[in-house]
Amino acid sequence: MASARSVSAAELESLAIGAWILGTGGGGSPYPSLLNMRKLYRQGTVVSLMDPAELADDEWVAVVSNMGAPLVGQERLTDPRPMARAVQLMEAYIGQRFRAVMSVEIGGGNALAPFLAAALLDIPVVDADAMGRAYPEAQMTSFAIRDLRMYPLTLADIRDNAVIVARAASWKWMERLSRKACVEVGSVAATCKAPRTGKEVKDCAILYTVTKAIRLGERVEQARRAHRDPIEAVLEAEGGCLLFRGKVQDVHRRTTEGFLRGTASLDGLDEWKGRGFRLAFQNEFVVGWLDGEPRVMTPDLICVMDTVSGEAIGTETLRYGQRVTVIALPAPPILLTPKGLEHVGPRAFGYDLDFTSVFAGAPPPAA
Amino acid sequence: MASARSVSAAELESLAIGAWILGTGGGGSPYPSLLNMRKLYRQGTVVSLMDPAELADDEWVAVVSNMGAPLVGQERLTDPRPMARAVQLMEAYIGQRFRAVMSVEIGGGNALAPFLAAALLDIPVVDADAMGRAYPEAQMTSFAIRDLRMYPLTLADIRDNAVIVARAASWKWMERLSRKACVEVGSVAATCKAPRTGKEVKDCAILYTVTKAIRLGERVEQARRAHRDPIEAVLEAEGGCLLFRGKVQDVHRRTTEGFLRGTASLDGLDEWKGRGFRLAFQNEFVVGWLDGEPRVMTPDLICVMDTVSGEAIGTETLRYGQRVTVIALPAPPILLTPKGLEHVGPRAFGYDLDFTSVFAGAPPPAA
Repeated sequence: MASARSVSAAELESLAIGAWILGTGGGGSPYPSLLNMRKLYRQGTVVSLMDPAELADDEWVAVVSNMGAPLVGQERLTDPRPMARAVQLMEAYIGQRFRAVMSVEIGGGNALAPFLAAALLDIPVVDADAMGRAYPEAQMTSFAIRDLRMYPLTLADIRDNAVIVARAASWKWMERLSRKACVEVGSVAATCKAPRTGKEVKDCAILYTVTKAIRLGERVEQARRAHRDPIEAVLEAEGGCLLFRGKVQDVHRRTTEGFLRGTASLDGLDEWKGRGFRLAFQNEFVVGWLDGEPRVMTPDLICVMDTVSGEAIGTETLRYGQRVTVIALPAPPILLTPKGLEHVGPRAFGYDLDFTSVFAGAPPPAA
Repeated sequence: MASARSVSAAELESLAIGAWILGTGGGGSPYPSLLNMRKLYRQGTVVSLMDPAELADDEWVAVVSNMGAPLVGQERLTDPRPMARAVQLMEAYIGQRFRAVMSVEIGGGNALAPFLAAALLDIPVVDADAMGRAYPEAQMTSFAIRDLRMYPLTLADIRDNAVIVARAASWKWMERLSRKACVEVGSVAATCKAPRTGKEVKDCAILYTVTKAIRLGERVEQARRAHRDPIEAVLEAEGGCLLFRGKVQDVHRRTTEGFLRGTASLDGLDEWKGRGFRLAFQNEFVVGWLDGEPRVMTPDLICVMDTVSGEAIGTETLRYGQRVTVIALPAPPILLTPKGLEHVGPRAFGYDLDFTSVFAGAPPPAA
């Protein structure tokens, strides 16, 4: 079809790298999903990527994600079938066929979630998402910020359980009801969120983020091949900002209420020697403090990278002794609007902080 | 219609009394639902009661209940509209109209739940239920004992939340998934269980229990009018067994995981003076010990009545100082089968006891 192009196996590898960076610690490691996609590609599958501009206004798009706590995703590995079942249950429930599938979040393993569904259902993936990064909760999307309808949602697990949230009194209720079902089936489940029309995707999604993540991954791969610093390449590609370099000194982490919550403390190295950086996370990194002062906060993307390899590090894989570099990348503009900040600013995570971006305001303090 | 007769306002009063006795402490107090029915009847509503024998094999019956913890039902009073919404959501989901509605349990307020739905939806109530009493969990029904399909289930709350459990891997999974949704909306919700065909109702339900509960309530009312002991009247009507008379000395009660759990200790009075009785409950009374020895256990109906008024006492209204009489009533035969005991015997509630009925075996110990 004219509106879609094939995604190569190499691009899936790049997507996994780029999405893991944009995941800001969450969205789950892309690796288990990548293993599934490698296998499906070896078996002859090729998934197409569709330009959202090619969607007709009245065509239906499935919006999928693996919901749950990233740490659990390390134990219960990704299986593409529940994702396909969640999409099929939604088709049966609304009595419509989906033209295509997209991810609710381009960050982490969920960048690959629509590819799993697309491979099994033979429909294209739309080049868009609803966060431009990863976030832990249902109401933290551009669709919610734009006040689109939040229901129905379908949820499927690896057994034969399936739940439909048919109506929700608010986005927060959708989050609460779907989260409890997710926790009950083991804190990880395949979900198909409220279906979107082509018009809604074109007007309210964050567009071309699949391509963006693939290109970002390619920049990292090129830097590695050229023996250049991959973190430098990411900062250049995205207009990012280097915040701290240090060693992980302590991690507090607990899987609770369907989330992975905790904090990490870093001791400075190099020009940050003697200084300390603290990170708080709820699936994703939410706030970072330099010597006790807020230095970076959501919705700015807070990415923690392995200082040597330049690989992104998830909140579930962060551990004592790692040499890491903390960088910030700019957030999609819709998240920076007053309405966007209500949904995803620091107060939406319980931090009594006014949002200040590292990309607007005073220059960063001297190291 | 020939197959259904009108239920009078007086019969609803009797039903509330009889059902509260058959509730064995649970099913929620019928009083809030009775208040709703009185109002609907004053407005001209008359609900019909349908003989299950008149159901065509392929007609569909809605099976409803208010799910949750009885104590919460004392705080969030019954509203008939969520019950009607749960039934309508089920009709939309399965694409079938319901010929009639029945209760999952004749015990407690849930005896009146189908009347609430019937009044709003203008369909008859079937003279049957699936427990012949009240029980706390989804798999504790004659439908589950007969291995009927456990899904779909719809659940609606007083806001605009609605959840469908579209598939469940087992009856226990149905219980877990629906319970979590129920807890999240406040530990009380209107539910429409897996729809049943007329054939399934005729073959697998416990029949004519609405009439039984009405007649039981009438016996109590007659005894009161004649200044006779209403507890005697209940024992005569049902072939019951008097177990203990005493004063409530202590109650431990907690609303947890969507249930009301706890224990109550009674000090003997009259011929039981100097002896002690202990009751354990999970919404309903489950086991009773006389002087530390198991004396009565589920599925025998364990009913605690006010010694003077003869009114049933719920696990949520039991309190220090009440003069109470504990009686046992015979259980429906299907609950006494080996399969039945797997679902509702003492081990199904976590008590490592072999079931012995007070109605079969040694005569009760001398008082």
